[in-house]
Amino acid sequence: MTIPATNMNIKLPEPTLHRLPWYLAYVKLVQAQGIEYISSTQISKAINVDASQIAKDLSFVNISGKTRVGYEVDSLVYVLEQFLGFTSQHRAIVYGVGRLGAALMHDSGLAQYGLEIVAGFDIRQLPQNNINGIPVYNITEFAQKRAELNAHIGILTVPVEKAQEATDNMVENGIRAIWNFTPYRLRVPENIVIQNTSIYAHLAVMFNRLGNVE
Amino acid sequence: MTIPATNMNIKLPEPTLHRLPWYLAYVKLVQAQGIEYISSTQISKAINVDASQIAKDLSFVNISGKTRVGYEVDSLVYVLEQFLGFTSQHRAIVYGVGRLGAALMHDSGLAQYGLEIVAGFDIRQLPQNNINGIPVYNITEFAQKRAELNAHIGILTVPVEKAQEATDNMVENGIRAIWNFTPYRLRVPENIVIQNTSIYAHLAVMFNRLGNVE
Repeated sequence: MTIPATNMNIKLPEPTLHRLPWYLAYVKLVQAQGIEYISSTQISKAINVDASQIAKDLSFVNISGKTRVGYEVDSLVYVLEQFLGFTSQHRAIVYGVGRLGAALMHDSGLAQYGLEIVAGFDIRQLPQNNINGIPVYNITEFAQKRAELNAHIGILTVPVEKAQEATDNMVENGIRAIWNFTPYRLRVPENIVIQNTSIYAHLAVMFNRLGNVE
Repeated sequence: MTIPATNMNIKLPEPTLHRLPWYLAYVKLVQAQGIEYISSTQISKAINVDASQIAKDLSFVNISGKTRVGYEVDSLVYVLEQFLGFTSQHRAIVYGVGRLGAALMHDSGLAQYGLEIVAGFDIRQLPQNNINGIPVYNITEFAQKRAELNAHIGILTVPVEKAQEATDNMVENGIRAIWNFTPYRLRVPENIVIQNTSIYAHLAVMFNRLGNVE
């Protein structure tokens, strides 16, 4: 297996970053079947994305296919996992240990994709001081514990009316990326990374489309 | 409060459906402060979306603002919640009760947004026959139980290598909308609604952007 050089520091277009995990998921299936090479046309047929788009997206990750045989499957899996950051652990904290926050702390599957939740914080005194073995602290300890834990990702799962205040506190105290599960549009300084996972938006689309189907 | 007629059966553009929950979240905050009217310009300043875009999106939901004062806050909250389907319960099942599936069954907050999880299904015999009071059945009972429960939404949380097979089984047995949490691109008939919640894509974007900040 040839291990190509990767460069996590290229700033990729967001749509490309959204598609790369699809390719990775499919190529891992193919790898499990013992297949050695795969072309962008084959990936395209399986997952319904234009082959030229796939080739273009993969050109960002420093891997090149061979004429007629395509990409080496093992290399492609390796490079995509490295490139997407799934093979190294990124330390994160959960801000707001309500139902959704606690649910995420129970989802140990996230670690397989490079996200290690090292603590939870809440404004209330919870009955237990840990969830799934992960400590839960009072929000008053945030600045100190965040620094001790050296975590730079904040998972935002507070009620919507606390979303901006929570964000400001995180940003002032060293959080550099926020994974926002609230339906609130956060305002942050330019150098702070935001990813919105819009659960409610997805529900709204499903309900609306179902209304049309029914 | 004037209650305008709503029409859930208009098929809205997906970007509009993604933005409406942001407006709703903000307008509910404003409502809690006792404010009676709000303009698209005020919403725009608060949540960083262009005012003309907001006015355009809101034109779909059969509510019109008054010159100078804007939208009536109570009506806007009411209409948006109705329109987005958050006030009626939509019955859903979880297909694949692993870590993420179980976590979603623990998140009773989803019911506040109109999603009622009525059962889980898994290929394995789980140690407990319910999670958070919601029954878990063997996948072999899927066709029968799905029909009995009259659930039309399937939440897909199986391992990626089972994603297509699980989808085919759901579609053959009466599921009409699939909320896909796997990184696999599903293939479904045209009349089936798909929403992809790409947790791994969001992680990839955060890791990539953080790599650039650090």
